[in-house]
Amino acid sequence: MANEEPKTVTQKITMKGGDGPLSYAQNSSLQKEVVDATKAMIIRAIANNLDMDKFCSQSSSQTFRIADFGCSIGPNTIFSMQNIIQALEQKHHETNHGNSSTILEFQLFFNDHSSNDFNTLFKSLPPSWPYFVAGVPGSFYGRLFPKSSIHIGHSSNALQWLSKVPQEVVDCKSPAYNDGSIYCRGIEKEVTKAYVAQFEKDMESFLNGRGEELVNGGLMVILMGGVPNGIPLSHTAIGKFYDLFGSCLLDLTNKGLVNEEKVKSFNLPLYFPSAKEVKELIERNGRFSIESMNEITEQLKCGQPLPSTQNCISHVRAGFEGLIKDHFGAEIVDEFFACYANKHLQSGFVFGDNAVDNTLMVMILKRI
Amino acid sequence: MANEEPKTVTQKITMKGGDGPLSYAQNSSLQKEVVDATKAMIIRAIANNLDMDKFCSQSSSQTFRIADFGCSIGPNTIFSMQNIIQALEQKHHETNHGNSSTILEFQLFFNDHSSNDFNTLFKSLPPSWPYFVAGVPGSFYGRLFPKSSIHIGHSSNALQWLSKVPQEVVDCKSPAYNDGSIYCRGIEKEVTKAYVAQFEKDMESFLNGRGEELVNGGLMVILMGGVPNGIPLSHTAIGKFYDLFGSCLLDLTNKGLVNEEKVKSFNLPLYFPSAKEVKELIERNGRFSIESMNEITEQLKCGQPLPSTQNCISHVRAGFEGLIKDHFGAEIVDEFFACYANKHLQSGFVFGDNAVDNTLMVMILKRI
Repeated sequence: MANEEPKTVTQKITMKGGDGPLSYAQNSSLQKEVVDATKAMIIRAIANNLDMDKFCSQSSSQTFRIADFGCSIGPNTIFSMQNIIQALEQKHHETNHGNSSTILEFQLFFNDHSSNDFNTLFKSLPPSWPYFVAGVPGSFYGRLFPKSSIHIGHSSNALQWLSKVPQEVVDCKSPAYNDGSIYCRGIEKEVTKAYVAQFEKDMESFLNGRGEELVNGGLMVILMGGVPNGIPLSHTAIGKFYDLFGSCLLDLTNKGLVNEEKVKSFNLPLYFPSAKEVKELIERNGRFSIESMNEITEQLKCGQPLPSTQNCISHVRAGFEGLIKDHFGAEIVDEFFACYANKHLQSGFVFGDNAVDNTLMVMILKRI
Repeated sequence: MANEEPKTVTQKITMKGGDGPLSYAQNSSLQKEVVDATKAMIIRAIANNLDMDKFCSQSSSQTFRIADFGCSIGPNTIFSMQNIIQALEQKHHETNHGNSSTILEFQLFFNDHSSNDFNTLFKSLPPSWPYFVAGVPGSFYGRLFPKSSIHIGHSSNALQWLSKVPQEVVDCKSPAYNDGSIYCRGIEKEVTKAYVAQFEKDMESFLNGRGEELVNGGLMVILMGGVPNGIPLSHTAIGKFYDLFGSCLLDLTNKGLVNEEKVKSFNLPLYFPSAKEVKELIERNGRFSIESMNEITEQLKCGQPLPSTQNCISHVRAGFEGLIKDHFGAEIVDEFFACYANKHLQSGFVFGDNAVDNTLMVMILKRI
């Protein structure tokens, strides 16, 4: 039931905790841009798609339960929650309930792996926040909440993280072995097939879980990065970034600092789908209707002069340090990110230069 | 509403985090004895006092929400939750619901201050626990949950911690100034009055909060340490322990290691009531009926030869390090507990020797 996390090597990789200069909390402004860019969209979606009357008459307590799946450690999860609450209050005000003396209560659930730094998240909550809050440890590919207990679900920049690396792609005897690359470039047929199969399985688990947990008529807001239809990831800005990232591993191997076998068995547990793929998966699953689906071209703003470049390097470290540490050991982490920073600066690397822009999908699903 | 923690110097003192040799997680076996001793009592109380039919017919989801108020970091909160679930399942089996195919779902909420080490707590949860879990940061003297959302509340060894030290007792100009002692001995009239007033205010806040949060007919299980009616705390084993504890502060002052003014402004935010006092407070509050109230004589088993003595010293440190650090600074902590350990060993200190045993109250309240 709850907390059934698949046992894999990569399952519990989380963003860097604490609130120091290298933490995710201090290095998530790119993700914040996503929150800001989609705020109006989410407010409109809740206004258009949520049947407020239904919930307010269903229950006498008028508590709205909102869950953020893959919240990490803030502050973006806090902004996202605030946007949703603002949307609900606006909607409540616009319906006849606005004339009643009824005050809505909000219970906010912050979910991420049990290895997430919930201590830092809790300490960063606004001190006089007038909402009930709770942290929920566990993988969102399993069940996390009782049946029909959540009104609004939210997930931002999280569903591209697979529950695990497909084992075939790091098995050099398999036809799906991802020789010479650390990610799903979207070109090698067998590699792509293995990644797609894992992504489909994970999305199905996610939709089944949320399908049980959301109340009938509840909304699920999903923000996730992707590729334009028909474009392989390796042609996109994110692909170029992973190429650079992977080349650092080769450099460290050549220097004798990293074991070659370790590099061969390393792949990123990430998959960036097209909108078409995601749409088909949701329709096939059948538990949610797609109320809206927008694609934003995501121009990653990391190619600016210093200090933005430095900032960008810190972002990369906050997001990927856990993965590198887990697979290669803590002793290599500083060396690896020094190498990455060096390459990033030397090459004047600009995400999006000579590459197709990635997309950001913004989906509003309704539990049917 | 939620998380309105009174702003005081001592409000956020929590048990020592992590799972190292000095942590509360490794030094809470005394508290575990309380859990074990009262298990049968709690199972019986739920069997006798919970109207299972009412909840199962009220809601189609059959989710039981259970909250532990002042959970600390485990493992005792986990044992307590398991005991309550066992009691609910037994009761469910014994009623006609046992014949139905309905499976109960449990959602467990672990509450403590936001400075509690929730990361350690979450990591220590049994990996295949078939329950939904959440951590809830905030003071239980404020609201923590939506209206009528909790079926069973639990609080063990927590309500003796006041929300703050009454300011009069550390104000040398006040008639309630607690001269020469660090706790409410229960002898000086004005000191006692100040402590009692704070305890009454805090208990009232606690009962009002839980009164809103528990469903009608929901049960609140409270375990708390106390004194036999009419016996001042200073005559009991806990009083003797605080005397020893306080004498270490004087020793460090005499050595010039601790500022005298700092010692004068230090008192423990703890109050141990008699059963009579607690009963009167609950009746005056009026939100709960007392279904049962038992007093167990609590013979603290700390006077054993090593390694139990050593174990006992570690217990004391796990429970009080936060307080000492907060008031006197981190640099004095090791010195202080070295002094305490030394005195404890030298005096062959036995809790309970030449002292009245403390009581443990076990109360089952029903939300009316």
